[in-house]
Amino acid sequence: MPDAAMAEAARARQGVLTKPPGSLGVLEDAAVMLAGLQRTPQPTLDRVWISVFAGDHGVAAEGVSAFPQAVTGEMVRNFATGGAAICVLARGLGATLEVVQLGTVNDPGELPGVRRVLIAPSTANFCEQPAMTAAQLEAALQAGADSVARAVAAGAQAFVGGEMGIANTTAATALACALLGEAPAMLSGAGTGLDAAGIARKQTVVRRALDRHAGIADPAECLRCLGGFEIAALTGAYIAAAQQELPVIVDGFIATSAALAAVRINPGVRDWLLFSHCSHERGHRRLLDALDARPLLDLGMRLGEGSGAAACVPLLRLACALHNGMATFEQAGVSTA
Amino acid sequence: MPDAAMAEAARARQGVLTKPPGSLGVLEDAAVMLAGLQRTPQPTLDRVWISVFAGDHGVAAEGVSAFPQAVTGEMVRNFATGGAAICVLARGLGATLEVVQLGTVNDPGELPGVRRVLIAPSTANFCEQPAMTAAQLEAALQAGADSVARAVAAGAQAFVGGEMGIANTTAATALACALLGEAPAMLSGAGTGLDAAGIARKQTVVRRALDRHAGIADPAECLRCLGGFEIAALTGAYIAAAQQELPVIVDGFIATSAALAAVRINPGVRDWLLFSHCSHERGHRRLLDALDARPLLDLGMRLGEGSGAAACVPLLRLACALHNGMATFEQAGVSTA
Repeated sequence: MPDAAMAEAARARQGVLTKPPGSLGVLEDAAVMLAGLQRTPQPTLDRVWISVFAGDHGVAAEGVSAFPQAVTGEMVRNFATGGAAICVLARGLGATLEVVQLGTVNDPGELPGVRRVLIAPSTANFCEQPAMTAAQLEAALQAGADSVARAVAAGAQAFVGGEMGIANTTAATALACALLGEAPAMLSGAGTGLDAAGIARKQTVVRRALDRHAGIADPAECLRCLGGFEIAALTGAYIAAAQQELPVIVDGFIATSAALAAVRINPGVRDWLLFSHCSHERGHRRLLDALDARPLLDLGMRLGEGSGAAACVPLLRLACALHNGMATFEQAGVSTA
Repeated sequence: MPDAAMAEAARARQGVLTKPPGSLGVLEDAAVMLAGLQRTPQPTLDRVWISVFAGDHGVAAEGVSAFPQAVTGEMVRNFATGGAAICVLARGLGATLEVVQLGTVNDPGELPGVRRVLIAPSTANFCEQPAMTAAQLEAALQAGADSVARAVAAGAQAFVGGEMGIANTTAATALACALLGEAPAMLSGAGTGLDAAGIARKQTVVRRALDRHAGIADPAECLRCLGGFEIAALTGAYIAAAQQELPVIVDGFIATSAALAAVRINPGVRDWLLFSHCSHERGHRRLLDALDARPLLDLGMRLGEGSGAAACVPLLRLACALHNGMATFEQAGVSTA
């Protein structure tokens, strides 16, 4: 549980800083929340850890992505050489970035900075069978938990999880539909850039998957049947982060589907999640609403990799700096209302 | 005029970076716009200049603010000692901050880091007479232009203007109503924290001011009759920045009212304005719409001082870093859609 007394003290401090009370908007809320999560009157976010999980999806065979499946492995190489968006963002933030390859059909092989935790080249096509075996799900959850353990050991003050996997908006949509009892049409979006016909096809695929795995109520079983390696790794990471009291900054649609699974598996996880942004991906708002989440940013982003969560970090840092560094009315000799 | 060819080249580059086209949302737009404004394929925002203008308002006598008028001068001292929100933000951004005192009823005297350009202790109460004489308006506009000249001389890559002045949301509301032909009820908000009765009183005061100065069509005359020293300084700064091709990051409600005046005086100014955030202040959205502006942030802020514009700077920096630092599909050997 976060420290309610510390959060309350932080809220009180916000009320006596030299500004109209509440006038920093959600930056005040963010500082107060971080004070409670970090159990300190002076929250900071200097050390941010980013883990990007990569995995391929059997459902890609249904033609649900605008990009070919080879891109997952190609992007792992791009992460290693520093050319991907999350690499640029991590450098800009001075954050630690690790890449965890859980299985790609196109395997780039050993690469510097890429941790190979190979579960299988891809999940199974969940239109036909469960995406993962029980052992594969367990391995993916553990991979996420292991990343959090490394983050904690490194003294991280927040954890960002990112993902890469061609067709993974389809998996996230199927998972979210199953967890929420929602129709595919409500949550299916353009992903990396489907046109209207592509989105219609994706809806049909998600419908088939939901029919194939109908009647599953257990959230971990939904994750096994409809998720993906990288989605399950995020779920495992979020649960582990909450258990170890490491605040999580949740990225976009896919990360939020993993967060929903985590919260359904263990409701106590919710307290440790800060939501960074509302993605342009169609279903994200619905997912955020289901988690009673109000993200800081709405930039029309839909890239994944943890990029939206990373973009939010400078604002959280400014929120902390304002909280810690502003003078009070009394200190500054400024009259109050 | 911004460099359309450079902006077009930047847009083309965004289309070949290793991400789905458009997936960085407004961060792509921001990088493209800055490329055009800075006339470079590699826009950057390392050197940001912040000028905060402070001035008092005769209309404060009508009881339109939740805070006493002495706060304007007290906050000038708080700016000088580094305890105000904008000071913390400027330090966090490594930005240059200057404070320009244009006239406060409570004069804190000479202070380090505060430039005294004293026009008068306050404007006149515009319910009774024009807020400024022609000479006072000219002095305020010039003060803003002088700040921009210093920013340009220092090699600034963007200009942020902030303001401090008890009762200045009332002045901004009156100015905006006059410029837009809008009713006071549509634009009058809580300012620093008025209750419903206070907002009703503010509406009546704005109505009286508009009646007193009815029939004025010239935007500079609207600014003279209904603005304030710090608002006019912002207007002068924005016009000068556009003339000197220095991009402007516009803050909240009051800054946007000054921007609207600047654009009405010189429509070419619009091209040089980036809008940072939508304030929680009631009338801001309407003002933004009038300028066809889509700000990056919506954080519920309503502090002024340039704080929302400052909060936007890290995102603009990340937008530039992504634009300049990401690999292309060809460089990374990643397949395209």
